[in-house]
Amino acid sequence: MLAPYFPSINPERFACVHRIFGASNAARMLQQIPVEQRRQAADAIALEAYWRVQDPVYGSVGVISMLQREISVAQRELAETQAQVSMYTAQVQSQSNQITQVQYLVDNAHLIPNQPPIHGLCQPPDIP
Amino acid sequence: MLAPYFPSINPERFACVHRIFGASNAARMLQQIPVEQRRQAADAIALEAYWRVQDPVYGSVGVISMLQREISVAQRELAETQAQVSMYTAQVQSQSNQITQVQYLVDNAHLIPNQPPIHGLCQPPDIP
Repeated sequence: MLAPYFPSINPERFACVHRIFGASNAARMLQQIPVEQRRQAADAIALEAYWRVQDPVYGSVGVISMLQREISVAQRELAETQAQVSMYTAQVQSQSNQITQVQYLVDNAHLIPNQPPIHGLCQPPDIP
Repeated sequence: MLAPYFPSINPERFACVHRIFGASNAARMLQQIPVEQRRQAADAIALEAYWRVQDPVYGSVGVISMLQREISVAQRELAETQAQVSMYTAQVQSQSNQITQVQYLVDNAHLIPNQPPIHGLCQPPDIP
């Protein structure tokens, strides 16, 4: 039953399955699965057994916890980046308004009599 | 050996462990773990067994595949959002330069003699 899915070329793989599930349990699990899915099931059982040998306390649950932490980090980073996008969107919009207003002033400058600027080039002289 | 970690108040939990690992395998696995970590190990074993009962082909590996897909989606979304941030940063910079230039023109408008605008308000009359 197990031989086609655990070839003797990779005895370590079967050793893990044997140690964690026991050969008869593993065979029974595969037997309850449609033939066309047994290869995937055998691979998944071998992976689970491998992780439990590597980490006898948490096994595949340890891998899952690690991935969940990775997801949390990615989601937090995404939220921060989305906040940055919102901030920039507002900044771009505000600058666009500013440009439109200033451009309007420039376009209509000929309607206003020449006068010194209110701010800008004219600075009060330094007091010695 | 198993009783403290699989109380009879939750027989379903132990039924999964029994079905997937077998009681003697589960007991042996716990025995090889330091006493202070056995509770976590029992919880992880129960979770693994539960997932394999739910999904006899993939078990916890199915959960891991799903989380890996979630991570891929989050990372792709993050990359897209970071690209948006870069685009906005460039836009904000370019608008700042534009504002500085136009502001310079406005500040120095008094130095330029009054003349009609090159573009803007003056439109050629419509040809009937």
